[in-house]
Amino acid sequence: MSDRKLAVVILAAGKGSRMKSDLPKVLHPVAGRPMLRHVQSCVATLSPEETVVVIAPGMADVEAAVAPSRCAVQNKPLGTGHAVAAAREALQPLLSIVETEVLVVFGDTPLLTAETLSRMVEARAAPGAPEIVGLAFRPADPAHYGRVILDDAGRVEKIVEFADADSAQRQIDLCNAGIVIGSGRRLFDLIERLGSDNAQGEYYLTDIFGLAHHEGRPAGVVECPAEEVLGVNSRADLALVEGVMQDRLRRRAMDAGVTLIDPASVWFSADTMLGRDVTVHPSVFFGPGVTVGDRVEIRSFCHLEGAKVSDDAILGPFARLRPGARLGEKVHVGNFVEIKNAELGAGAKANHLSYIGDASVGAAANIGAGTITCNYDGFAKHRTTIGAGAFIGSNTALVAPVDVGPGALVGAGSTITRDVPSDALAVARGEQQNREGRAASYRAEQKAKKAEKDGHQG
Amino acid sequence: MSDRKLAVVILAAGKGSRMKSDLPKVLHPVAGRPMLRHVQSCVATLSPEETVVVIAPGMADVEAAVAPSRCAVQNKPLGTGHAVAAAREALQPLLSIVETEVLVVFGDTPLLTAETLSRMVEARAAPGAPEIVGLAFRPADPAHYGRVILDDAGRVEKIVEFADADSAQRQIDLCNAGIVIGSGRRLFDLIERLGSDNAQGEYYLTDIFGLAHHEGRPAGVVECPAEEVLGVNSRADLALVEGVMQDRLRRRAMDAGVTLIDPASVWFSADTMLGRDVTVHPSVFFGPGVTVGDRVEIRSFCHLEGAKVSDDAILGPFARLRPGARLGEKVHVGNFVEIKNAELGAGAKANHLSYIGDASVGAAANIGAGTITCNYDGFAKHRTTIGAGAFIGSNTALVAPVDVGPGALVGAGSTITRDVPSDALAVARGEQQNREGRAASYRAEQKAKKAEKDGHQG
Amino acid sequence: MSDRKLAVVILAAGKGSRMKSDLPKVLHPVAGRPMLRHVQSCVATLSPEETVVVIAPGMADVEAAVAPSRCAVQNKPLGTGHAVAAAREALQPLLSIVETEVLVVFGDTPLLTAETLSRMVEARAAPGAPEIVGLAFRPADPAHYGRVILDDAGRVEKIVEFADADSAQRQIDLCNAGIVIGSGRRLFDLIERLGSDNAQGEYYLTDIFGLAHHEGRPAGVVECPAEEVLGVNSRADLALVEGVMQDRLRRRAMDAGVTLIDPASVWFSADTMLGRDVTVHPSVFFGPGVTVGDRVEIRSFCHLEGAKVSDDAILGPFARLRPGARLGEKVHVGNFVEIKNAELGAGAKANHLSYIGDASVGAAANIGAGTITCNYDGFAKHRTTIGAGAFIGSNTALVAPVDVGPGALVGAGSTITRDVPSDALAVARGEQQNREGRAASYRAEQKAKKAEKDGHQG
Repeated sequence: MSDRKLAVVILAAGKGSRMKSDLPKVLHPVAGRPMLRHVQSCVATLSPEETVVVIAPGMADVEAAVAPSRCAVQNKPLGTGHAVAAAREALQPLLSIVETEVLVVFGDTPLLTAETLSRMVEARAAPGAPEIVGLAFRPADPAHYGRVILDDAGRVEKIVEFADADSAQRQIDLCNAGIVIGSGRRLFDLIERLGSDNAQGEYYLTDIFGLAHHEGRPAGVVECPAEEVLGVNSRADLALVEGVMQDRLRRRAMDAGVTLIDPASVWFSADTMLGRDVTVHPSVFFGPGVTVGDRVEIRSFCHLEGAKVSDDAILGPFARLRPGARLGEKVHVGNFVEIKNAELGAGAKANHLSYIGDASVGAAANIGAGTITCNYDGFAKHRTTIGAGAFIGSNTALVAPVDVGPGALVGAGSTITRDVPSDALAVARGEQQNREGRAASYRAEQKAKKAEKDGHQG
Repeated sequence: MSDRKLAVVILAAGKGSRMKSDLPKVLHPVAGRPMLRHVQSCVATLSPEETVVVIAPGMADVEAAVAPSRCAVQNKPLGTGHAVAAAREALQPLLSIVETEVLVVFGDTPLLTAETLSRMVEARAAPGAPEIVGLAFRPADPAHYGRVILDDAGRVEKIVEFADADSAQRQIDLCNAGIVIGSGRRLFDLIERLGSDNAQGEYYLTDIFGLAHHEGRPAGVVECPAEEVLGVNSRADLALVEGVMQDRLRRRAMDAGVTLIDPASVWFSADTMLGRDVTVHPSVFFGPGVTVGDRVEIRSFCHLEGAKVSDDAILGPFARLRPGARLGEKVHVGNFVEIKNAELGAGAKANHLSYIGDASVGAAANIGAGTITCNYDGFAKHRTTIGAGAFIGSNTALVAPVDVGPGALVGAGSTITRDVPSDALAVARGEQQNREGRAASYRAEQKAKKAEKDGHQG
Repeated sequence: MSDRKLAVVILAAGKGSRMKSDLPKVLHPVAGRPMLRHVQSCVATLSPEETVVVIAPGMADVEAAVAPSRCAVQNKPLGTGHAVAAAREALQPLLSIVETEVLVVFGDTPLLTAETLSRMVEARAAPGAPEIVGLAFRPADPAHYGRVILDDAGRVEKIVEFADADSAQRQIDLCNAGIVIGSGRRLFDLIERLGSDNAQGEYYLTDIFGLAHHEGRPAGVVECPAEEVLGVNSRADLALVEGVMQDRLRRRAMDAGVTLIDPASVWFSADTMLGRDVTVHPSVFFGPGVTVGDRVEIRSFCHLEGAKVSDDAILGPFARLRPGARLGEKVHVGNFVEIKNAELGAGAKANHLSYIGDASVGAAANIGAGTITCNYDGFAKHRTTIGAGAFIGSNTALVAPVDVGPGALVGAGSTITRDVPSDALAVARGEQQNREGRAASYRAEQKAKKAEKDGHQG
């Protein structure tokens, strides 16, 4: 089969009404990425010639999300067989010129693995392979899944829906996952002959198995772990699938040499990358686009998105890195500190209660507690530059655009509106006045006022 | 039975010594509310004429907590039968004038549902219904629970405590929940005849079942899920019950169209209300009194209490809303921001490191990073008003009472003590002075000082 | 046996390559403490005369970590028997003068309890006790563990590795934990005679059991719960062991009268001490060295290390206590507040967005929102002293060294660089200037500028 081409049909037309959402079901995110994109990534590992996503009318947001993959519209919800048929026109150019495999998967099963798909492809490639290969699984509780009935040769006799199954068939624990691969011509030939003579009046893709067997050309079957074909039909399903995905990501991190003190309290995005001997303390959230170097310590209650963290940095607790944060080696970002679109040079420190946005901070610079880059004037964002080795005193406001030179010192409590030259000391604060005894007299006045007020009320 | 009146007795006299607490057991909170109040809410769905809470002497705090329900004092801890008898006097006026049902429940089983109580009421209402109906459950591990022995007609023959049960009886997995409903006259008649001829010398309410059967007027039984009658006798029990309650609340939210990315890390109060298509990221805490509109995004590490959040708002990460926070549509409250007793108009933003307390913020106003409303002068709280479209520069202190007019600008780093007119620009800061080379010379001095000190020590 | 001396050998030479770490396996922390230290603490309860830790060459960091315990170096990784032999020289002085028990444990099983070790010691002390006693456990899934084969008298016939076990032996669920106690002379005599005639060419300590039985002097065995001998060979194992340890610490806290609303989201260190009627809300992290008094409320998202908190204090949410934080009774530390190396007197409050470092705060002092102690000047740390009853206005910077006297008031927005006398009022801020209409004209200018820019680009 290695010289045959592959086309993929992803079924994504389901409304998902049990989600009770205005967002199409397949766009709900899992590990920070729409579940449909997980399916796309998975099938992409097979390098298909063409991928067609079958959507319902009006799903412009799905169409936009899957680009450059093409979409085909299933005009009415008449079953999975009908949905696959809707993709035929888009695939016809390819099918008509070359022997093409067609793989049908679902947009709402984001846990499917490339390894399982590879095994399906291989099952088709073997000499004497069946023309169609389905995917099956053995769930802990088969419940109401359709059962896969095998013949004596281990080929598929038919799929029996639970409602139609007799008690012997219900004892079978091999269940139908709905995913199918096969010769494109054969697959669409079978689909063309599907009937809709059932309670729902729909065309079921699964009926092709019975048809094929009836013709003496039965389908084969590949098994996969039950978790891979968990589908999402409700928010509870979504949470379940998210949990399985997170456990995979956590396991992957630990296998690579990352300590997760409490894995269940670390939330990853699908693309999170962590170095060796990183330690992640309990309760840390990784949004999309985070890369972390070796030996980084990430303490509890950190929130990272779109950030690059170099080796030996220390983060948190309570650090927030937003997109564009780029931390050099041995940088420390401490509690209640937000870094956005800013580079911090090696060894720079911002340990307490600061906002560093749209800024460049030089190596070994020290950002005092309560420092704020005033990057927005209500109209535009401006940059702050802090030179290497500069020391910004606590509770300082740096009004951008502004430049603090290397080695400069800024006195605590200053509002810096003009550039500070290298090695200069800048101070901008009001003069302190101590009024002796004034606190005592103020307290006396306030008490008298209160007594008077209470008297009036009494 | 529909024209009969209902009275409820809640048994709450237990000391709960295994809790090792100075707080009476039934006042320990579950989902942010004393467990006794959960039981009260549950029985309130039956609209009883009267509810009497049986307490031990000295439980003034329970008495205060259950008002306006009445309390009856059980003077000595002589068993559940004795406890119910303590409520008789309080119920006598009602019992003496009208046929009254009496329901006996426990103050330490906060997971009991209204649906189960309804089924008990219905079991009494059927024609030929037993005079007394008990509640039973089948736990995964019956352990040391008392067993419910049924006669051939499915009526209760007796309750056998585990210690007294023979091996055949121990095989029975139907266990006694202790909760009872019945004709008030019959119930108190049976209770009056209870003996205390047992190891503890106590009067057990459960003995009424044997008595009733002995007289040929046996009780019926209703079953409920085991989790509903989980009682709280230790902090570990309390955590277990809290977990079940949280899972119910999480499930309820998801069923209503809320995404909980990691349900186990979202903690609700019993009264939390969330709109459709709300997304709650991992690790969010909802204290009592929170209402959230549609399509709100609540990022990780938010803490909300007594707050109202309108549609399309974005919160966190690391946002804290305290009682009296009222956020308009599309408001953004960002990291390390605390809002207390303050309204934010539609589209207002407070995204970084701010404290907004006792304030009104107009629509589309922008609160810069590090803004603080100085609402307390050591004696009283004062209000800050910020007009629509105003822009508060970063690191600003607003000394209340103070009014910043609509469209006004406040320069970064200002301490504002006087009102700012509409469309005015206010600045209050010291002038910046740059002292060339002073940082370099300061460093040299410090190094010399250190060298000298080290020399002295050496 | 009570007059016999005890020596302990801790095997810690394993590289733990599956950890993928530069840190030796036994130094990876569990509950905030290297796992080897847990084992040391556990064996220390037996008051041994001598403890020898067997390490591999180049493990200087382990040697440093276990001091003053002695280390012996196993020059090549030739098996557990070989490792114990490596400790012989260090123990020889003791063994040669007195009848000595030798206990062999592993440095990577931090869940072992003192109670289990005591039972092993007792098993040796009984009249007619076996010369050697092993430790065994019955795991839920025996998997590939070595099986303990007992003779008819209940003594150990041999240990059979899973690979060598026949199917009958694999049915046995009693597994070998590897831990051994016995007469030192006998133990080393047996070890001396171990062979390495096996696939790995290693000397297995477990082979002493077969040897002993063969000589008609069979070993005995003590059983322990399976969780106690969970070993750590990967980051996933480490997380598993951490989870069990945390559950023990959580259970201990609850048993002592602490409410953990969601136990799974509270992370303890091995030495955390909490008083009675403490309530810990969800998502709280306790680093090493924390002691908390009675009736303290710790709200969500707090992070504590090296801190002492007195009775009736209220912390958080979002409070961070760092080493040297010492809070008096009824102190309140609120959101986004960091306390480091600072004492707060009874009733003092720091409720919002503050950094209090290297400071003394008097009783009932009020620290306004956004207060920052500027304790570091780039060269040294300096102290801030705030007197009892002082009131620090919001957004104040206190430039240390500085002293604010008792009863003093500091105006909001001040940068305090000189001492403030008792009962004085200090203010240091720029004068406010309101420029009427300037915000409106500024907006107009900005819009014009933008329009011009857009025009140029268009």
